[in-house]
Amino acid sequence: MTAGLFTIPLWIDLLAVGIGSVQGAAFAAQFRDRRLDLLGVAIIGIATGFGGGLIRDILLGQVPLALRSNWYLPVAVAAALLGMLLQRLVHRLGVTINILDAVTIGMFGAIGTTKALALGLPVVPAVFVGSVAAVGGSILRDLLLNLPIAIMQVGSLYAVAAIVGTSTLVVLDALGVDVLIAGIVCVVVTFGVRVLAVAFHWTLPEQRHLPTGAIRIVRRPRRPGPGR
Amino acid sequence: MTAGLFTIPLWIDLLAVGIGSVQGAAFAAQFRDRRLDLLGVAIIGIATGFGGGLIRDILLGQVPLALRSNWYLPVAVAAALLGMLLQRLVHRLGVTINILDAVTIGMFGAIGTTKALALGLPVVPAVFVGSVAAVGGSILRDLLLNLPIAIMQVGSLYAVAAIVGTSTLVVLDALGVDVLIAGIVCVVVTFGVRVLAVAFHWTLPEQRHLPTGAIRIVRRPRRPGPGR
Amino acid sequence: MTAGLFTIPLWIDLLAVGIGSVQGAAFAAQFRDRRLDLLGVAIIGIATGFGGGLIRDILLGQVPLALRSNWYLPVAVAAALLGMLLQRLVHRLGVTINILDAVTIGMFGAIGTTKALALGLPVVPAVFVGSVAAVGGSILRDLLLNLPIAIMQVGSLYAVAAIVGTSTLVVLDALGVDVLIAGIVCVVVTFGVRVLAVAFHWTLPEQRHLPTGAIRIVRRPRRPGPGR
Repeated sequence: MTAGLFTIPLWIDLLAVGIGSVQGAAFAAQFRDRRLDLLGVAIIGIATGFGGGLIRDILLGQVPLALRSNWYLPVAVAAALLGMLLQRLVHRLGVTINILDAVTIGMFGAIGTTKALALGLPVVPAVFVGSVAAVGGSILRDLLLNLPIAIMQVGSLYAVAAIVGTSTLVVLDALGVDVLIAGIVCVVVTFGVRVLAVAFHWTLPEQRHLPTGAIRIVRRPRRPGPGR
Repeated sequence: MTAGLFTIPLWIDLLAVGIGSVQGAAFAAQFRDRRLDLLGVAIIGIATGFGGGLIRDILLGQVPLALRSNWYLPVAVAAALLGMLLQRLVHRLGVTINILDAVTIGMFGAIGTTKALALGLPVVPAVFVGSVAAVGGSILRDLLLNLPIAIMQVGSLYAVAAIVGTSTLVVLDALGVDVLIAGIVCVVVTFGVRVLAVAFHWTLPEQRHLPTGAIRIVRRPRRPGPGR
Repeated sequence: MTAGLFTIPLWIDLLAVGIGSVQGAAFAAQFRDRRLDLLGVAIIGIATGFGGGLIRDILLGQVPLALRSNWYLPVAVAAALLGMLLQRLVHRLGVTINILDAVTIGMFGAIGTTKALALGLPVVPAVFVGSVAAVGGSILRDLLLNLPIAIMQVGSLYAVAAIVGTSTLVVLDALGVDVLIAGIVCVVVTFGVRVLAVAFHWTLPEQRHLPTGAIRIVRRPRRPGPGR
């Protein structure tokens, strides 16, 4: 396994964080009944912008990268306020932003996966950490807005794109491909899956169960499930 | 304090994770309005299966054990998909699964508590960490499904069973009992409390307050509480 | 940057934790439909009492301070049960408790910020960590109660008070002021902003967007936003 890191220049990372924050704030703007104030918008921006990176580093036992620089927080907050003010523009630019976002999750996935590999994690958890880095911000956003987690619901492949991209990365890495090339392929694959999924409405199947005949169920009064 | 760990073979740990994942997925299946897709089911399986272990290791400042092996993630995902497909069977097997689950939380509690003690935590936080390891998965499950946290509500003792079991463990440990025996007693006690609670509908009292007379309340227009 | 810590005696820290727990439990008591049992109340007390400190230490890569002593858990649980029993008294004492709480968030902010600085974090993340330490408990409380996060909504400045206080601290610290004095100023400023905000109903503006004319929006059928 490589100890190489797929890294990107700070300004690109900050740009990616900003894209996430703009989106998070514009998304939150749809929920006016939440009565978010400016701080609430800033918090959503922070969560969406680098929440995935926070979770990644906490899982890896590291002080989060975004807290080791003065840049991440102001960028996320400014981008969130911009996204709030220009929410209509952001919604009109939906396609453009989906495209930028697809690049972003590809990059976050590649950074997270190579960081996990470099710290000695096996390949399966490395894919997990990279995917969480890519989509964790959107999970945090939904938790903080008290909404169902979007990536767990039927919808155009988003987390799946990150999983496919980061899986490709670990395969290439195991084959000895240079980490820079593997990382770029990860971004391209993630981007491709995500954009094609949006274009062609690819979705995962909804949860289902085997037909009742198959397990010879006997109708009886409903019992409480094993939830508690 | 001992530095001994109560450990179990990997395959038993994975079996316990699988039991948690099956349950989590079957539980989630009740909420069809959530429109979970297969990834959503897998995420619930991961959260329920080893979410408690993730929180335990994050609290202890360690890279989570489940991320240091290639096994945990596939087992949790496969078990979740199985639980989804066979959800009716799982609900029919409610009693069996409750019993298996009671053993599981006992084991997770014993592992978590002895790990905390071995890392030098005092006894009270060690009981806390062990109990969180036992029931943290169910908390994460409810958070991700945007549901009230089941273990905080009136219901058959579940977290309480883990607290009683792990408390027994630290007492035995303080008395110099071998960690293997203390751990087994923890599993047995947790199992016993849980199963008896389900059988006899033991519950904790619901939240209440002292009768108003006792504090001579004067009726007045309701003021906002100290919530914010 | 200083490596000095603003510390307070253990008993004051425990008192602050207790105040948070009392409040959390009394707050939770308003939601009887949640059917919380005594354990649920205890969990809310723990989350509100030292949840901010837990998040602070996890972000800083440390085993949480509250888990390195036997005192925090019993104090938080006992205070929560007291807050539950005396919830009417607590609500009647709203003003007093708001005042005590304002001191508490000031102290938690000062402790968190100086701890972050001492561990080498830059000033902006140090303000972030201190503010999260101050208000993170209330975020956890709302997450666990499945409520909208109060500090993100329009309301009397609470998190803002902590941000202003901790920002003052880092400025003073950069100017070479002794950490003890800077910490005390932080507490006083946080307290002042919070109490004045409650007294005069100071709030942050609600989220808004630029007037549509400014971005020449063309009315068209609403498209889904970039949420997924």
